[in-house]
Amino acid sequence: MGILVFFMNYQKISPLDVTFFSSVVGNDLVLSDEEALLKFGHDETEDLVFSPEIVVKPKSTLEVASIVKYCNEHYIPITVQGARTGLSGGALPLFGGVALSMERFNHILEIDTKNGQVTVEPGVITQVLQEAVAEQGLFYPPDPASKGSCFIGGNLAENSGGPKAVKYGVTNEYVLNLEVVLASGDICWTGANVLKNATGYNLTQLIVGSEGTLAIITKAVLKLIPHPSRTMLMLVPFPSAEKACEAVSAIFREGITPSGMEFMERDALVWTANFIKDQSISIPDDVQAHLLIEVDGNDEAILMNDCEKIMAVVEKYGALEVLFADDQAKKDQLWNLRRKVGEAVKSQSVYKEEDTVVPRYRLPELLAGVKAIGRKYGFQSVCYGHAGDGNLHINIIKGALSDEMWNNELPFAIREIFELTVGLGGTISGEHGIGYVQKSYMNIPFSAVELSLMKGIKQLFDPNGILNPGKIFV
Amino acid sequence: MGILVFFMNYQKISPLDVTFFSSVVGNDLVLSDEEALLKFGHDETEDLVFSPEIVVKPKSTLEVASIVKYCNEHYIPITVQGARTGLSGGALPLFGGVALSMERFNHILEIDTKNGQVTVEPGVITQVLQEAVAEQGLFYPPDPASKGSCFIGGNLAENSGGPKAVKYGVTNEYVLNLEVVLASGDICWTGANVLKNATGYNLTQLIVGSEGTLAIITKAVLKLIPHPSRTMLMLVPFPSAEKACEAVSAIFREGITPSGMEFMERDALVWTANFIKDQSISIPDDVQAHLLIEVDGNDEAILMNDCEKIMAVVEKYGALEVLFADDQAKKDQLWNLRRKVGEAVKSQSVYKEEDTVVPRYRLPELLAGVKAIGRKYGFQSVCYGHAGDGNLHINIIKGALSDEMWNNELPFAIREIFELTVGLGGTISGEHGIGYVQKSYMNIPFSAVELSLMKGIKQLFDPNGILNPGKIFV
Repeated sequence: MGILVFFMNYQKISPLDVTFFSSVVGNDLVLSDEEALLKFGHDETEDLVFSPEIVVKPKSTLEVASIVKYCNEHYIPITVQGARTGLSGGALPLFGGVALSMERFNHILEIDTKNGQVTVEPGVITQVLQEAVAEQGLFYPPDPASKGSCFIGGNLAENSGGPKAVKYGVTNEYVLNLEVVLASGDICWTGANVLKNATGYNLTQLIVGSEGTLAIITKAVLKLIPHPSRTMLMLVPFPSAEKACEAVSAIFREGITPSGMEFMERDALVWTANFIKDQSISIPDDVQAHLLIEVDGNDEAILMNDCEKIMAVVEKYGALEVLFADDQAKKDQLWNLRRKVGEAVKSQSVYKEEDTVVPRYRLPELLAGVKAIGRKYGFQSVCYGHAGDGNLHINIIKGALSDEMWNNELPFAIREIFELTVGLGGTISGEHGIGYVQKSYMNIPFSAVELSLMKGIKQLFDPNGILNPGKIFV
Repeated sequence: MGILVFFMNYQKISPLDVTFFSSVVGNDLVLSDEEALLKFGHDETEDLVFSPEIVVKPKSTLEVASIVKYCNEHYIPITVQGARTGLSGGALPLFGGVALSMERFNHILEIDTKNGQVTVEPGVITQVLQEAVAEQGLFYPPDPASKGSCFIGGNLAENSGGPKAVKYGVTNEYVLNLEVVLASGDICWTGANVLKNATGYNLTQLIVGSEGTLAIITKAVLKLIPHPSRTMLMLVPFPSAEKACEAVSAIFREGITPSGMEFMERDALVWTANFIKDQSISIPDDVQAHLLIEVDGNDEAILMNDCEKIMAVVEKYGALEVLFADDQAKKDQLWNLRRKVGEAVKSQSVYKEEDTVVPRYRLPELLAGVKAIGRKYGFQSVCYGHAGDGNLHINIIKGALSDEMWNNELPFAIREIFELTVGLGGTISGEHGIGYVQKSYMNIPFSAVELSLMKGIKQLFDPNGILNPGKIFV
């Protein structure tokens, strides 16, 4: 108890260090040119840049072990990086040091169809993995919006979700076993390749979601399930955003578990349609929000039946004319609209994104509260997200707000949003992680006792504080 | 690293201590008579008895906090106990001290139908919880064989499984949030009441399965799902146990996920039929093993279709005449047979039960290996378990074996079984936990580095080593 993680006197990288890293991975895989330092100094979080001193690109566990051991002995900070698509600044090298890019860990090592498992390196793109296992009739469900570019390793580090989570769960529910490199340079496996495990403490689940602060993941064994053969998708407009949110939990109470249940405020869809130059979906003036609802399975009649039940529910909550996606092209179009919301908002204005999550029935209260806080502080917000999970992404738009307001007042507004979220039984990140941008709010969901347990775990795994320093905790 | 958990100089309980405990819970809820000390000195693990010095029965979190804080300050060991139905000795007070019985924590605090959650105290019987939520159309799937008597708290402590785990997952997949009392007496919540959570380290999953060694659970928020309305159940006899095991993974490869997939060797069913005096199921001489296979859902036609596909698979593996349970009474009868196997074996002979788990396709190799080890060491075994999860319970029968063999040779045989299990990608406990009886084998699945991480976590949570000492680690 009461252990604090102090930031050590980190050492700057010297020419000797560069020589060592080069000896491990090869000269051409150690970068320190300005362009590289800029590139590996940002992820998709706002406009933040924290450049590393050097970028190192290992390709094997042993190489990672050598590099980490060296950094640990020399007090050099090391920030593991995937595709840098994260939204909480988890991959930003706040203290310089080494950016450890896992991009060369890009192999699917084994698709074990007999046991329904895949062994994969962390640098594999999520969608590449999904497509490879789908060819074998198997399904790896977690699918963040960035699935076409993000890495499995980043998904593991941040415990990513995505639209399918509402039916199939988030990343951590698919992780059976991890090979990790500890700060000491020791290599170990966290569990076993089995579906149930009551053997000692659950190190696997401790590493998942730890944002590269406890260990570096070098291999993952993931659970796969049979791939459903059919989906049906509908876009449901509502004249009231709160009514749309109310419809969400009502659908589940009908005994239906959709495979997608996405909420978008009016502006989210309008801005995205403009951003991707797709005006084929009409959005009448009286529409204030949409639900994008998917069901999946293997039997068309059952899915039709589910859709009819859903229709009956949404009508009770005032749904306007429902759009059914009747072929794959239309489905792809609707999902693309949803997936591009984040980029569309980003293109519109400087913004901050919060990743609130509450029990799903509390979603209307959360949305109404966020709007009230917006009125109080004078900011506009665009909200969307995985309504079926109670996971609401709140995009706060800078627009015409002054820098003074943006930098000095807004943190108080965000604190109010998070206090509301926690008060509703929720927490401050559903799937993006805490990383850098949320860390000063960790005292809202957690007491000093809880934070001190977490910091104690950090201290245990990484006594020198070299692994992704400055993240999660202030 | 390298932190060791030393057993402190535990203090014997003095009259002053008794006065303190009585002041917290009341005189009549502090027991030290011989009968009580014997009763709370055993669980369902073999014939082991380790009596506490005193039994204390708190009824509130604050009472638990007072007791734990006092024990921590006075170096008094404290072993939290549920219904003492465990099979690894997790609830045995090895060092005496306080047996903290949670039997008065027997309230279901809230069934939240709107969000599909239940808040429950740890002393609620699993089946009581299941039935209470089923009345609301909701389903809490984890169902150990002892569900009629075991407590939710014990299920959480040991990360229990059961027959439904093959489709629905084990206990830890249903835990959203836990209220716990730490060794210091501090009370905290581990997470939030949400379906997805990327906010700091996963303390919830660290506590689940930690067998009362890290903290004492005083409330749990569990996820519920819609209750399926129909099941179909069949008992499939095979002339070869290994063929039965081979059929298991073949069924999954057809894209079917049964809601139950249980394996029983011939003797398991024969002994149980004798034990419960139910000879209505004929077991011809050529039957060497059975699979008990259940499918569930809401649509009769789909379930029939699944059953037909299963029939086609099992026939390929030599299945004999299949018995369909065509009404609820027959289903109850078959499940009762399966659930009573453990007790039936226990009634037959002194025995030891191992809880091996492997990737399901490796099950035939595990079974064949166990039989070979049995021939080498000269012991008989009866194997059964959750084949769909690759979870095989190996009951080693003492029968006519000498005490010398049983006490001194058998540990080597068990070690061989576990080495085989781990060699097949598995681990040494699927759902019973390590507790007392498996702890000396923890160096088979885990390296010194991995064990030292776990011991470091123990040291962090419980620096005085008062919480359930002598468990998990040697």
